[in-house]
Amino acid sequence: MTAPDAAAATAATAATTAPDTTYPPTDRTVPTRSRERASYDREVVHAILDEGYVCHLGFVRDGAPVVLPTLYARVGERLYLHGSTGARPLRMAGRAGTEEPGLPVCLTVTHVDGLVLARSAFHHSINYRSVVVHGTARPVTDPAERTTALDALVDHVVPGRAADSRPANAKELAATAVLRLDLEEVSAKIRTGGPNDDAEDLGLPHWSGVIPVARAYGTPVPADDLAPDTPVPAYLTRL
Amino acid sequence: MTAPDAAAATAATAATTAPDTTYPPTDRTVPTRSRERASYDREVVHAILDEGYVCHLGFVRDGAPVVLPTLYARVGERLYLHGSTGARPLRMAGRAGTEEPGLPVCLTVTHVDGLVLARSAFHHSINYRSVVVHGTARPVTDPAERTTALDALVDHVVPGRAADSRPANAKELAATAVLRLDLEEVSAKIRTGGPNDDAEDLGLPHWSGVIPVARAYGTPVPADDLAPDTPVPAYLTRL
Repeated sequence: MTAPDAAAATAATAATTAPDTTYPPTDRTVPTRSRERASYDREVVHAILDEGYVCHLGFVRDGAPVVLPTLYARVGERLYLHGSTGARPLRMAGRAGTEEPGLPVCLTVTHVDGLVLARSAFHHSINYRSVVVHGTARPVTDPAERTTALDALVDHVVPGRAADSRPANAKELAATAVLRLDLEEVSAKIRTGGPNDDAEDLGLPHWSGVIPVARAYGTPVPADDLAPDTPVPAYLTRL
Repeated sequence: MTAPDAAAATAATAATTAPDTTYPPTDRTVPTRSRERASYDREVVHAILDEGYVCHLGFVRDGAPVVLPTLYARVGERLYLHGSTGARPLRMAGRAGTEEPGLPVCLTVTHVDGLVLARSAFHHSINYRSVVVHGTARPVTDPAERTTALDALVDHVVPGRAADSRPANAKELAATAVLRLDLEEVSAKIRTGGPNDDAEDLGLPHWSGVIPVARAYGTPVPADDLAPDTPVPAYLTRL
């Protein structure tokens, strides 16, 4: 978040782990503020990515920014996106340039964990975990990788679902574009904990603390055309 | 979402309401696909914006897209953003150009309402409501408008909170940049309802339907330094 915050920006936490366990920071992934909240740890990044399934994908069209929500899935150090072959960003990524086709993107995933209420309006904040990925989205053409990606996209939303649905047929595959985005220039940003009020505000009468925020799943609603005796599979009741 | 979907792209629904109740569609706000899901109705757009408080803000830096999560608030036909005067997009928006300073942005708000499970992997989808705003974010310098904006940003997250906190002092105001983005080039996109399976798939044994998704608030957690007898205000228990 770019919201004002109590913590002064300090130098980014030095990587104390072996290089291969972290993403190397770059000019684009070192924040200008609240650097102590940044993380380049692969496990931290993977955990944030794996908890979500909707990202916000940014790209440049005619010189102007465009941000669209779309589904994603992680397989190792690669993210996959998909969509109709007619959708704009997928067409743009597949357009042949002078070299390998691809679309420069920024892919961001954000989880809101809490509303942080301080005594002062200024120190209000949000507890959150976000990941920002910079890179070039490229079309996936290898049939085996496309199948892996499409299964992952279904299973990323509902683990176990890909095996319990009809796989895409040739016509559907032909209508679907798949993009990959390698996890190379990546950072996470995390805020946790309570409000950071100034000492002189602690005596003010306002309640202060955190309102936890979480994602909640409701009872599965069967499709109108579903046979009434169809059992709800265990992977859904576990959600 | 750019996910594959059953509904064929059809012509955008013609605006049947008076011009002032809708945003005029533009090349950027008419989607290439699933146009029947698009809405330009101001009330629909306002309702989606007012239900959220975290947006994904896209801008272009050195020719490449950047997408960051940040708080926003709506006041009439204007969105407000804020942040440290040192934060990158706020610095960029305030930089004087040859004319009025400003930063071209795309601001997107997305609510996920359900996971749509079809018999076929291809027809899986997400029920969602999103709003995409294109425009130029400009610094707000008028003191009264800045106060309105900052109050709105606090109240947008927790209605009623601005009046129950210490207002920003001169030092805090000086450290806070406020941007405004007029609602002019705006569209909503909405998917509702169950899966749209192909007729020949209806006999397959897979459960199909919708898993509702919602935001849930937990029990308020008081700050460590909060006096134990401080009551939780009614505007929090109503969340």
